[in-house]
Amino acid sequence: MTDAPLFQRVALLGIGLIGASMALAMRRAGLAGEIVCAARSVETRAAALSLGLVSAAYEDPAEAARDADLIVLATPLGAFGPLARAIGPALKAGAIVTDVGSVKDIVFRDVAPALPLNVHLIPGHPVAGTEHSGPAAGFAELFDGRWCILTPAPDADEAAVARLSAFWTGLGAKVELMSAEHHDLVLAITSHVPHLIAYNIVGTASDLETVTRSEVIKYSAGGFRDFTRIAASDPTMWRDVFLTNKTAVLEMLGRFVEDLTALQRAIRWGDGDALFELFTRTRAIRRSIIDAGQDSAAPDFGRRPPGPGGEPPA
Amino acid sequence: MTDAPLFQRVALLGIGLIGASMALAMRRAGLAGEIVCAARSVETRAAALSLGLVSAAYEDPAEAARDADLIVLATPLGAFGPLARAIGPALKAGAIVTDVGSVKDIVFRDVAPALPLNVHLIPGHPVAGTEHSGPAAGFAELFDGRWCILTPAPDADEAAVARLSAFWTGLGAKVELMSAEHHDLVLAITSHVPHLIAYNIVGTASDLETVTRSEVIKYSAGGFRDFTRIAASDPTMWRDVFLTNKTAVLEMLGRFVEDLTALQRAIRWGDGDALFELFTRTRAIRRSIIDAGQDSAAPDFGRRPPGPGGEPPA
Repeated sequence: MTDAPLFQRVALLGIGLIGASMALAMRRAGLAGEIVCAARSVETRAAALSLGLVSAAYEDPAEAARDADLIVLATPLGAFGPLARAIGPALKAGAIVTDVGSVKDIVFRDVAPALPLNVHLIPGHPVAGTEHSGPAAGFAELFDGRWCILTPAPDADEAAVARLSAFWTGLGAKVELMSAEHHDLVLAITSHVPHLIAYNIVGTASDLETVTRSEVIKYSAGGFRDFTRIAASDPTMWRDVFLTNKTAVLEMLGRFVEDLTALQRAIRWGDGDALFELFTRTRAIRRSIIDAGQDSAAPDFGRRPPGPGGEPPA
Repeated sequence: MTDAPLFQRVALLGIGLIGASMALAMRRAGLAGEIVCAARSVETRAAALSLGLVSAAYEDPAEAARDADLIVLATPLGAFGPLARAIGPALKAGAIVTDVGSVKDIVFRDVAPALPLNVHLIPGHPVAGTEHSGPAAGFAELFDGRWCILTPAPDADEAAVARLSAFWTGLGAKVELMSAEHHDLVLAITSHVPHLIAYNIVGTASDLETVTRSEVIKYSAGGFRDFTRIAASDPTMWRDVFLTNKTAVLEMLGRFVEDLTALQRAIRWGDGDALFELFTRTRAIRRSIIDAGQDSAAPDFGRRPPGPGGEPPA
């Protein structure tokens, strides 16, 4: 390991599940000379230090960003604008500013105007996560084999994009480039709308007067529990996703509801062939996802009991 | 093990995931003197024999049911009526006829009329399963710690109900009794509507012209892949569920769509507080499900890499 690390100083602005996992994966691969973070709450800063994620934790994001070669915005999206305004004056010439937010068009709108012209803004989004939040939820393997999407502007500096790509590859991810606008459309259907309908059905179930809350919980193994897992994701982060990716989410949601209405009609009129046709078609997509290494074929929906390849005891 | 088994001869009519898991769990607990099955296809019968699930496999369900003390209907719901008519004349006096279907009211409608008056019909539903189908998908631990709901008629024989309850307890399940009508309402929200919306969003995603199929697959780790898991469930079984539990499914689906419309409106008008309130409320239900032992708190949504408590290598 005589090579110099890819970045001398990396500043993580926000250190929840993603920021903490990045810190651990950076250490695993020796990608950073120094890792520091900024966090608003004193508890988070103390946790980041005691978990050994960073060598320094600042309240002021400008302090963390000063002299950094790579600055990562890793808070919920709603904080991006204020953060950019806070760090703008402190940034080193040639620094790379990126983020890990789930919506990308907003980064150009909220972050770019506050940055000096001599830094490189390259928005990014690692498509990985769990339903847990906070620095203690992080783990070094989170990005292994997952995709990280970078959405550089058409006139972005190629060397900076290559360096950030190498960084994410070093964290274990596979890197893909696309426009911010296309990213927001793709993620609306693969992530945002799935989260919305998961949140929604958990809400619907908890509001019923004919079925008790305890019945919903007891019989959740029939399918419902998988939705509660997704619907346990961080509320602030997801509120901001829906507020910032409004257009694409409403477009995809409109299609979802249209298709659902057709299914509803098939059920009402007893059109078994239409149901069977859809239910057969969806199996093929599942197989493709497993073949692409984006999920395991283990029968997780049934939650195998403890043992090799099984879940840990509850 | 000098005790006599709970049932001398058990006939499984249909031997897919559930039937096969029952056979394995019966052997584990020594609940049956003899286990036989009936299956239409010669491949399924050969698999049931070669997997060691049963001592005999018949094409004719009446042959399997003859002399059996417990007969389990374990096919998709649509086959229940014909099956009942086929086995009715062959049933032994005092035999218990049950099923494992996901809808229960239909059992009284389709099965009861075809049975002689000297047998006990006690519908049942183990709330457990995986997205895999067929006899080779079965495993003995599938029912461990899960609920099995029995829906005996108000005038059902108490001793027969107690014996069937003991049987399911022996298979590892916890037993609950309720009316068939209430069962169908509870399962509509905890299982049937979740499956329907999972099938639906996978269909919506595969029909988009602005996002390619390969993009949907690549970025499925953002939440979508969990829906594909559910949407890979057996098409015939699920078609029959929606055709037979029409009223309760349409009722619950109506509420789901109503709530979704409110969320859609909150997004359109930027009502972050409404989104945040719902997303916070849904976390509490997740915690209750984990506390009730119906799921594990391991961050499965993120699919931890191979290792203790992790998923097996893809």
